[in-house]
Amino acid sequence: MSIFEKLESQVRSYSRGWPVVFDKAQGSWLYSEDGKPYLDFFAGAGALNYGHNNPALKQALLDYISRDGVTHSLDMFTTAKRDFLESLDEQILQPRNMEYKVIFPGPGGANAVEGALKLARKVTGRESVINFTNAFHGMTLGALSVTGNSMKRGAAGIPLVHATPMPFDKYFDGEYPDFFYFERLLEDSGSGLNEPAAVIVESVQGEGGINAARLDWLKGLSDLCKKHGILLILDDVQMGCGRTGPFFSFEEAGIVPDMICLSKSIGGYGLPMAITLVRPDLDVWSPGEHNGTFRGISPAFVTAAAALRTYWSDDELEKSTKEKGERIGARFRKFVEEYPDAELMAKGRGLARGLEFGSGEAAGKVAAAAFDRGLLLETSGPSDEVVKLLPPLTLTDEELDKGLEIIAESVESVLSR
Amino acid sequence: MSIFEKLESQVRSYSRGWPVVFDKAQGSWLYSEDGKPYLDFFAGAGALNYGHNNPALKQALLDYISRDGVTHSLDMFTTAKRDFLESLDEQILQPRNMEYKVIFPGPGGANAVEGALKLARKVTGRESVINFTNAFHGMTLGALSVTGNSMKRGAAGIPLVHATPMPFDKYFDGEYPDFFYFERLLEDSGSGLNEPAAVIVESVQGEGGINAARLDWLKGLSDLCKKHGILLILDDVQMGCGRTGPFFSFEEAGIVPDMICLSKSIGGYGLPMAITLVRPDLDVWSPGEHNGTFRGISPAFVTAAAALRTYWSDDELEKSTKEKGERIGARFRKFVEEYPDAELMAKGRGLARGLEFGSGEAAGKVAAAAFDRGLLLETSGPSDEVVKLLPPLTLTDEELDKGLEIIAESVESVLSR
Amino acid sequence: MSIFEKLESQVRSYSRGWPVVFDKAQGSWLYSEDGKPYLDFFAGAGALNYGHNNPALKQALLDYISRDGVTHSLDMFTTAKRDFLESLDEQILQPRNMEYKVIFPGPGGANAVEGALKLARKVTGRESVINFTNAFHGMTLGALSVTGNSMKRGAAGIPLVHATPMPFDKYFDGEYPDFFYFERLLEDSGSGLNEPAAVIVESVQGEGGINAARLDWLKGLSDLCKKHGILLILDDVQMGCGRTGPFFSFEEAGIVPDMICLSKSIGGYGLPMAITLVRPDLDVWSPGEHNGTFRGISPAFVTAAAALRTYWSDDELEKSTKEKGERIGARFRKFVEEYPDAELMAKGRGLARGLEFGSGEAAGKVAAAAFDRGLLLETSGPSDEVVKLLPPLTLTDEELDKGLEIIAESVESVLSR
Amino acid sequence: MSIFEKLESQVRSYSRGWPVVFDKAQGSWLYSEDGKPYLDFFAGAGALNYGHNNPALKQALLDYISRDGVTHSLDMFTTAKRDFLESLDEQILQPRNMEYKVIFPGPGGANAVEGALKLARKVTGRESVINFTNAFHGMTLGALSVTGNSMKRGAAGIPLVHATPMPFDKYFDGEYPDFFYFERLLEDSGSGLNEPAAVIVESVQGEGGINAARLDWLKGLSDLCKKHGILLILDDVQMGCGRTGPFFSFEEAGIVPDMICLSKSIGGYGLPMAITLVRPDLDVWSPGEHNGTFRGISPAFVTAAAALRTYWSDDELEKSTKEKGERIGARFRKFVEEYPDAELMAKGRGLARGLEFGSGEAAGKVAAAAFDRGLLLETSGPSDEVVKLLPPLTLTDEELDKGLEIIAESVESVLSR
Repeated sequence: MSIFEKLESQVRSYSRGWPVVFDKAQGSWLYSEDGKPYLDFFAGAGALNYGHNNPALKQALLDYISRDGVTHSLDMFTTAKRDFLESLDEQILQPRNMEYKVIFPGPGGANAVEGALKLARKVTGRESVINFTNAFHGMTLGALSVTGNSMKRGAAGIPLVHATPMPFDKYFDGEYPDFFYFERLLEDSGSGLNEPAAVIVESVQGEGGINAARLDWLKGLSDLCKKHGILLILDDVQMGCGRTGPFFSFEEAGIVPDMICLSKSIGGYGLPMAITLVRPDLDVWSPGEHNGTFRGISPAFVTAAAALRTYWSDDELEKSTKEKGERIGARFRKFVEEYPDAELMAKGRGLARGLEFGSGEAAGKVAAAAFDRGLLLETSGPSDEVVKLLPPLTLTDEELDKGLEIIAESVESVLSR
Repeated sequence: MSIFEKLESQVRSYSRGWPVVFDKAQGSWLYSEDGKPYLDFFAGAGALNYGHNNPALKQALLDYISRDGVTHSLDMFTTAKRDFLESLDEQILQPRNMEYKVIFPGPGGANAVEGALKLARKVTGRESVINFTNAFHGMTLGALSVTGNSMKRGAAGIPLVHATPMPFDKYFDGEYPDFFYFERLLEDSGSGLNEPAAVIVESVQGEGGINAARLDWLKGLSDLCKKHGILLILDDVQMGCGRTGPFFSFEEAGIVPDMICLSKSIGGYGLPMAITLVRPDLDVWSPGEHNGTFRGISPAFVTAAAALRTYWSDDELEKSTKEKGERIGARFRKFVEEYPDAELMAKGRGLARGLEFGSGEAAGKVAAAAFDRGLLLETSGPSDEVVKLLPPLTLTDEELDKGLEIIAESVESVLSR
Repeated sequence: MSIFEKLESQVRSYSRGWPVVFDKAQGSWLYSEDGKPYLDFFAGAGALNYGHNNPALKQALLDYISRDGVTHSLDMFTTAKRDFLESLDEQILQPRNMEYKVIFPGPGGANAVEGALKLARKVTGRESVINFTNAFHGMTLGALSVTGNSMKRGAAGIPLVHATPMPFDKYFDGEYPDFFYFERLLEDSGSGLNEPAAVIVESVQGEGGINAARLDWLKGLSDLCKKHGILLILDDVQMGCGRTGPFFSFEEAGIVPDMICLSKSIGGYGLPMAITLVRPDLDVWSPGEHNGTFRGISPAFVTAAAALRTYWSDDELEKSTKEKGERIGARFRKFVEEYPDAELMAKGRGLARGLEFGSGEAAGKVAAAAFDRGLLLETSGPSDEVVKLLPPLTLTDEELDKGLEIIAESVESVLSR
Repeated sequence: MSIFEKLESQVRSYSRGWPVVFDKAQGSWLYSEDGKPYLDFFAGAGALNYGHNNPALKQALLDYISRDGVTHSLDMFTTAKRDFLESLDEQILQPRNMEYKVIFPGPGGANAVEGALKLARKVTGRESVINFTNAFHGMTLGALSVTGNSMKRGAAGIPLVHATPMPFDKYFDGEYPDFFYFERLLEDSGSGLNEPAAVIVESVQGEGGINAARLDWLKGLSDLCKKHGILLILDDVQMGCGRTGPFFSFEEAGIVPDMICLSKSIGGYGLPMAITLVRPDLDVWSPGEHNGTFRGISPAFVTAAAALRTYWSDDELEKSTKEKGERIGARFRKFVEEYPDAELMAKGRGLARGLEFGSGEAAGKVAAAAFDRGLLLETSGPSDEVVKLLPPLTLTDEELDKGLEIIAESVESVLSR
C-alpha cells in the first residue's frame, strides 16, 4: 500500500475504514484484490443505484466505446446526448407532465447545485439563500456555503456567507409548527433576514443522517416558497433516480420544484454526470454564460439512457425499492425494540435507510464490525451517529437478507458488550 | 434536432457555431451522424491531447470494463488508482525530482482549483488571492471569483470578492517592468491590498486569448511569491499534460509551484478526472475535510495511467509538440506579414496557438469559414478575437498541413473580402 | 422653508411629520420660530434624557466654553476627559462593582457598535455575529449589517453578511421556549450556523417598536453566551443612561455584558459622544488600531460629567423614572381596555413606552393628531405601528399629565372616527 | 494620570507622544494644566482650521447656548440649520456655480463617506469601489474597506471586500502614465475587475503622508470616471474648508465631483458635524432610508455658519493660506538641500505640508524633539515617515516663524547626531 501512503493526500477517508485495495465489482459486490467479496450497502454514496457494472448498461457502454462513439464533446450536439434527452423526456418528464429545460452544469452534483444557485440569483436579483440544518450540497464554494457540516465549512478558509440555515423537518421532534420561524421572518419587514432568492432542500438528507422530511413538510415548504416568490431548488443528487422509490424523491409530495439537481446515479454506471432541470421561464442564461469542459461525456449519456429505458419504463423498480426499504425499516424498528437502552432510532424512506445510535462511537463500531464480516456500510449525521444504508436498488432478496443478518450480528456485537 | 431545442438550455454554445450532430470520433477527427469528417483543432478544449478514442488507451479501457474492474470508488483504495499513482510517480514526478502529494478534488478542473484555493486559505489563514487579467479557472463560485471574463462573472449573481487582478505578462506590451505594481502593493503597508494567501496563474492563458507568459515572467512571479510568503498555484488544467511541449507547461521556467492543478487531458481519454498536487507540508486537511462523489473514477485512472506510460516515458511527444507548434507559429507569423493591414498577431507556445485578429467579428468569420471547410476551431480572448488552435498533440504532419491549408483559405476568404 | 427644499436631501424624515422650524428649547419643550411651544415626548430619540438645555449642564458648558477650555482633542489627555472618567468611575462603575475599560470609538452610537463588533471579531477570530429580529444598531456598514429594518438594509447597496437574526423575546408571544432554536444551532455541529464571535442585543428595542425583553430572557441569553464562549454586546445607546430606570437598562437582569455601547444621552446635553465599555481582558487593540477625529469633544465630556454627578449620585431619578413610566403604562393599559376592537397593546419599561396599534396608519394618525395638539411623538416598529414615548426623564408630573391628556384626545380622535 | 491608566483603553495614541494633560486652548495654542503653552501645528488633525476657540465663532456659540437655542434636533427643521444652509449656499455653492443637495449623514467624516458609498452603490446597482493606495477614509466598516493602512484594516476582524486599490498620483514617481492600469482594466471586459460604482479619492492624502495629487491627475481621474460612467466621490474631510487654499481642495483642478464629503473643519469650532454633497439627480433615498441621532447638532451649525461668513466672503484666507503654505514649502525644500544625505522630500499644498524622512524612526524623533520644544506635530505615511504640518489657517506670521524655527532645531537635533 506504500504508493498510497507516499503520494495520496491525508484527506482520504473511506480507505481508512475499509483498508483494502478493491479491484473488481459486480452488482451488489465489490472484490478486493485478493478476491475477498464485500457486500456493498454503500453503493458509491448513492452513485450506483443500479449496482456495480450493471450488465445491461455495461454492454451498451462497451458497444459505444468499441464503435468509436464520441467520448468527449462539451456542449456540442451528439447522437449520445440526443438519445439521453429523448430517454429522459420519454421515460421521466412526459409521464409526469413535467416541463423543464436541461442544463448540463458540469460533471458532478456540486456543479448541479452551483448552476442552480447562480441561476436563481441571476433570475431574482437577490443574493441570499435559505438552506437547512444538516444539509449537504457539495464542496465547491457555492455549494459549501449551503452545507451544514462545520468541519467541511471550516475548510473553506473564508467566511461562508449569503446563506441562512432554517430547521429541517423534525429538527425539534415535531414540537413546533412547520416553518413557524421561517415564515415569521419572511413576513416581518424588520426581521433582518435578507430576502432570499431561493430555498435549497433535500427531501431526505443523506449526509445529514438519513433525515426524511415528511411529504407534508415538503408540500408546506413548496407552498411557502410560492407564496413569497422564492425559488425552490430540490437537490435530488443523492435521493433521486429512484433511491426512495419514485424516480424523483419528492414526487409523492405533489410538488413541482423550480429547479432540480441530479447527479450520482443519473449516469447509471458511476461515470461523472450531472444535470440541473429548470422551469423553462428560468432558462435565461446567454450562450456560454455558464460553461465547462466535462458537460458532455457521451459514455455517461449512453449508460444514463440505457438505465432510464431499462428501469423506468414501468414501476417495478419503484415497487421493489419500497418493499425492500420497508423490510429494512421493519428490521430497524425491531432493533429499536430489542435494545431499549441504546437510544436507537429507525430512519429513512425507500432504500435510503438509517439506524441512529446514541453516539458516533457506537455507530462507528457497528460499521467496523460489519466490514469485518464483509459488509460495506457508511455512517453519517453531525456526529457520524447514524449507520447509513444505501444498497443498490437492484440488490436481490438474498443479498438483502445477508446484509441485514450481518448488521444484526454487528449491532449485537457492539451493543451486547 | 428538435429534442435539443425542446429540452436543452439556451446556455449551450458550441452547438451554435457547429450546428451538426456528431456521432463518432477517431484521432484528430470527429464525424457527424451523416458521416462527414471534421478535422478537430479544438480537441475538447484541451481535454483530448492524445486525440479521440486513442487506440492504446481504448484497449486498456475496454479491457478494464470488460473484466468488471471497479468503476466508481470515491477515495477508496483500488488497483486502478494504485496503478495511476505509480505511473504518475514513475513517469512524471520522479524524473523531475518533484515532491508532491496528490489530492483527488473532484471530477473537473474547477474542483482542482477550488481545492487549491481552499487549502491555500486554510494553510495561510488569509482570504485574499491574486489572479491575473483574462484568467480563466472555472465556473464554480470559488473558481469563478478568480476568472476574468465579465459575462461569466456576472452570471454568479453575487459580488465576487477576495480576488484582486494583476496584469498578466505583456498586458502592457512590455512597456513596464514585470510586477512593478504588484510588488509595490506588497511592500507598501498602506497600499490597501489585503495580504494574499496565494497567486493563481496559468502559464499560457487559453480562454484569455492564448497569452503565453514568458518563462522569465513566470520565474519572476515565483520569486516574488517566495519572497513574500505567498503560495503559487499553477493552473495547468488546459496547458499541462504536454500541451506546450513538456508535461508541465512551466517546466522550462525552472519553477516549482506550491500547488498544481491538473484536469482535462490528465485522464487521457476525455473522461472526467482532476488532481491537485500540493507541496507535502501543505497537506494539512483532516480526513474527509474535503470530499466528493466523483473523486475515484477508475476507468479514467486506467486511461490516465496508459497515457502516461505510452507518451511520457521518453521525450518524443514533447519534441514533436514543439516542432509542430513551431510550424503553426511560423505559418501564423507569415499571415501577419501577408495581411499587414489586418492587425494580426501570432501567439502561443507548443501546440497552444492563437492568431489574433483586429476584432471578434473577423475571428468569428474565420472560424465559421473553417467549419464550412471541415475544420473545428474555437475563438477565445476577451472579445473572442483570437482564433485558437489546440489540436491533438498526436496529429499527423498531414493533418497539420491540411488544417493550416484550411485556415489559410479561411483567413483569405475573410480578409480579402 | 425654501432653503430646505432647495438644498436639503430628500432623505430627511422628521421634518415631514413636524413641518415647522424649531428655534428654542428648554426642559421638555421645543419652541417653533413663531413661538409656539411643543411638548417633547421624543427627546432627541433618547439623546435628551435630561431635557433640552438642562440648566445645570448648560452652566457648566457655558463656563467651560467661556474660559477657553479645550474643545477638540482627539484622544489626547485633557482635564475634561479626566473629569468625565472620574465621574463615570465614581457614579457608575464603582457603585456597581463593574470593571470595564473605556473606548472612545467616535462621536455616535454607530461608532460604539462598530467598535464593539470589530473588537469582538478580532478577539475571537470569528466573523459571524448573532443579532435579533427588529434590532436597530445604526447606519454605518458594520452596524447596519446587524440591523433588522429591510428598507434601511436595502440602502446599503451591497449584501449585508456576517449576521444571522434570532428571534427576540416574545417574537412568538411566549409560545416557544427561549433560545430553543439558537441553542440547538449552537449545539449541532451540522447546523450550518457559522460560529458566532458575539451576540448583540438591546434590552428594550426602541426602533423595533418598544419591545422590552423580560429580565429572565436577558439572563438566559447571557448564560447561553457564557456557555458557548460567545461575547455579549449590550447596545444601551438608546435605553441606557436611565431610560428604563437604572443607569444601565440591563442591571435588574443581573448580567454583566462583555461589552456595552453607550451614546445618545451619555453626553447629557445632546452633543455627540459615545463610549464602548469592554471587559479589561478584551482591551487588545494596539495604539491607534482604531481611531477617529471626534473621539474627544471636551464640551460633551463636561456636560456628561455634570449629568452623571447631578443625576446619578442617588436613586431619585431612577425611582421617578420607574414611577412615571408606570403611570404611562397604566394609562396605556386603560386604552387597551377602552378600545377593545383596536388591537392595542401597551409595551415598554421605565420611560420607554409604546402603544401598539393594529396598523401603521392608525399609529401615524395618532402621532399627527398629537402634533396638531402640540405634542411631539414618534412612531416605530416594522410597520411604524407603535406610538413611541421617550419623554425627558426630567419631565414634571404636570407635563406628563398634559402629554397623556393629548394622547388620549389623539387616540380618541383616530379610533372613534 | 491614574484615571486614564485605570479606565482608558490601550488603543489611545496621541496621548502617548504628548504625555501631558491639556486644559485650555486659544488660536494656535494649547495649554497644559500646568500652564505650559504648546504651539499647535496639528490643529485637531484638520478639524481646527480656524484655530482653537476662535473668538468670532465662540461668541456666536455662547449666544446661541445662552438663549436656549435648540441643541439637538436630528433632521428636524431649525433656524440654526436654515442659517447654515443659507451660508453654505451664499458663501460657497453659488459663487462657484455648484449645484448639490446636502445630506446630513451623521456626526463624523466616516459617516459622510459611508453615506456617499451607500448612495453610490444604490444609484448604480454595483457594489465595487475603487480606492487609492495609502487612502484614509475612516474607521467604520464601509469607510475602512476603502482605507489603505494594513494595521487599521486588520482591526476589522472580517475580510474587507468590494474595494480595489489603484495607484495614487506619483506612486511610481511619474514613471508611468496616469491611470494606465486603471483604464486598461476598465476597457478590458476580461480584466476581472468588478465594474465600479464609484471612485473615492482625496486630493491630498493626509494620513497617507501628505501626498498631493497634481491637478492634472485629478482632472484626468474625473474625465476617466465620466467616460466610464463611474461616480467620483471626493473625500474633502481633511483637505476641504480651505486647508489647501480654496474652500474645496479640488477647485483648481476644474472638476465637479459627483459627491463631496466634508467634516472636521466644516463645523468651524471642532464640534462634530459632517455633510455629504451630492449631485441633485443622485438624491434618490426615500425619507429615513439613511438616518441617525447626531445629524442635527445646532451649536455646530451656528459655528459653521459663522465660520463660512467670517472667512469665505472674500479670498483673504485663501490667499494667506497659499502664501503661508509656500513659506513652509520653501523652508522644507531648503531642508532637503541642507541635508542632502537624509533622503528628505518636501510635500504638500497650501497649509497641508509634509517633510518626508528616510524612515519612520527619524520622523518620530523630530516630532518628539518638537514636542520637547513646545510644538505639536504629527507624523503620517505608511511607516510614519512624514512629519505632517496642519497648522490653523489663522496662525500669525510670527507663529509660523516660531514653528519653523522649532522644526529647524528639531531636524538639526536629529539629523546632525
